[in-house]
Amino acid sequence: MHYTQTEIEGLEKIYRANLLNAISGYKPANLIGTISKSGQTNLAIFSSVIHLGANPALLGLIVRPAKVPRHSYENMKETGFFTINHIHKNFVEKAHFTSAKFDRNVSEFDVCKLTAEYQSGFLAPFVKESKIKIGLKLVDEIPIKLNETILMIGKIEHIFFPAEIVGIDGNMNVDQTENIAISGLESYYLPTKLASFPYAKPDILPGFE
Amino acid sequence: MHYTQTEIEGLEKIYRANLLNAISGYKPANLIGTISKSGQTNLAIFSSVIHLGANPALLGLIVRPAKVPRHSYENMKETGFFTINHIHKNFVEKAHFTSAKFDRNVSEFDVCKLTAEYQSGFLAPFVKESKIKIGLKLVDEIPIKLNETILMIGKIEHIFFPAEIVGIDGNMNVDQTENIAISGLESYYLPTKLASFPYAKPDILPGFE
Repeated sequence: MHYTQTEIEGLEKIYRANLLNAISGYKPANLIGTISKSGQTNLAIFSSVIHLGANPALLGLIVRPAKVPRHSYENMKETGFFTINHIHKNFVEKAHFTSAKFDRNVSEFDVCKLTAEYQSGFLAPFVKESKIKIGLKLVDEIPIKLNETILMIGKIEHIFFPAEIVGIDGNMNVDQTENIAISGLESYYLPTKLASFPYAKPDILPGFE
Repeated sequence: MHYTQTEIEGLEKIYRANLLNAISGYKPANLIGTISKSGQTNLAIFSSVIHLGANPALLGLIVRPAKVPRHSYENMKETGFFTINHIHKNFVEKAHFTSAKFDRNVSEFDVCKLTAEYQSGFLAPFVKESKIKIGLKLVDEIPIKLNETILMIGKIEHIFFPAEIVGIDGNMNVDQTENIAISGLESYYLPTKLASFPYAKPDILPGFE
């Protein structure tokens, strides 16, 4: 099947959104935890978390402030902090429904039955049920003018993870956590380990084919 | 296990790189196809492709031009076009080894035994063996000053995919393609479908717990 740019622009809106949200490949499944100045917590599923660098330790996140819900964005701006929490297969449905457009005074922690947890004096709430959790300070906000989205950049201040999934070289056996991946807007996948390979060098290539 | 910011900064370099490249969750597995003005093709594995929007249809990609190899970046700048090609489980090892630092005059298509394919008059080479392929025009380049990376933004001009994996609502059953996901810098995962849920609305929540 082949679609050109013109054909893509002519697709029915929901069809196009579903197709194009899947076309980039598997996406990470994370819950973003925030709190307002007045103490109202918020939790929202995002598939746009991206690794930006290990030194300094930076992660990015795409937000769409022109569209509701924008509570996560507002809280990040108000307090300067947020958390990223991996989604385990056992609470994928709860995580999905954090995407409903709840009122500002409703906490998704409450209605979706997930537990806000505060650790190490960090301001923003973590998800107690998550096996990998990251606390970040908002350090930059880069507007993407072409579609009015924003790349929010966080510097990692805390990471929490099960010690037993990390090897002596820092590699994580993430499938042991039973965390999931996302495709499109509503499909959730459980990955299993297929292969790993050594650092690639031009002079020691495998004999392909 | 808990690391603070100070502890992260003190980690051994390779350990830190492996750990932090896995901490954001599963990442998409794509090969970026480019060609120089003089006709030299290049193919490189990237885990940083990100969905930016469906209308206009935009995808992003993080590049590190300050570090070798930068051939993909140079070709994108020279010609203004690039392709994104999903990685199938049957050629994951070939895809991994495109990350070796080959000389500028070596094509990863040749040494890693993948096939450059030209379609619909599009300038940049696609990967024939891929089941989902995207042709993009470079439309913006946003510097991330904090770590000298760049968010390259492409507008989708062509998409190719197997018709049978797309439902009438545009949702893709991507696991039918047997394409893979990445964790960290060297680990590859095959996802299987776990669940999908309807568009979330606050007034029709499932009864959690």
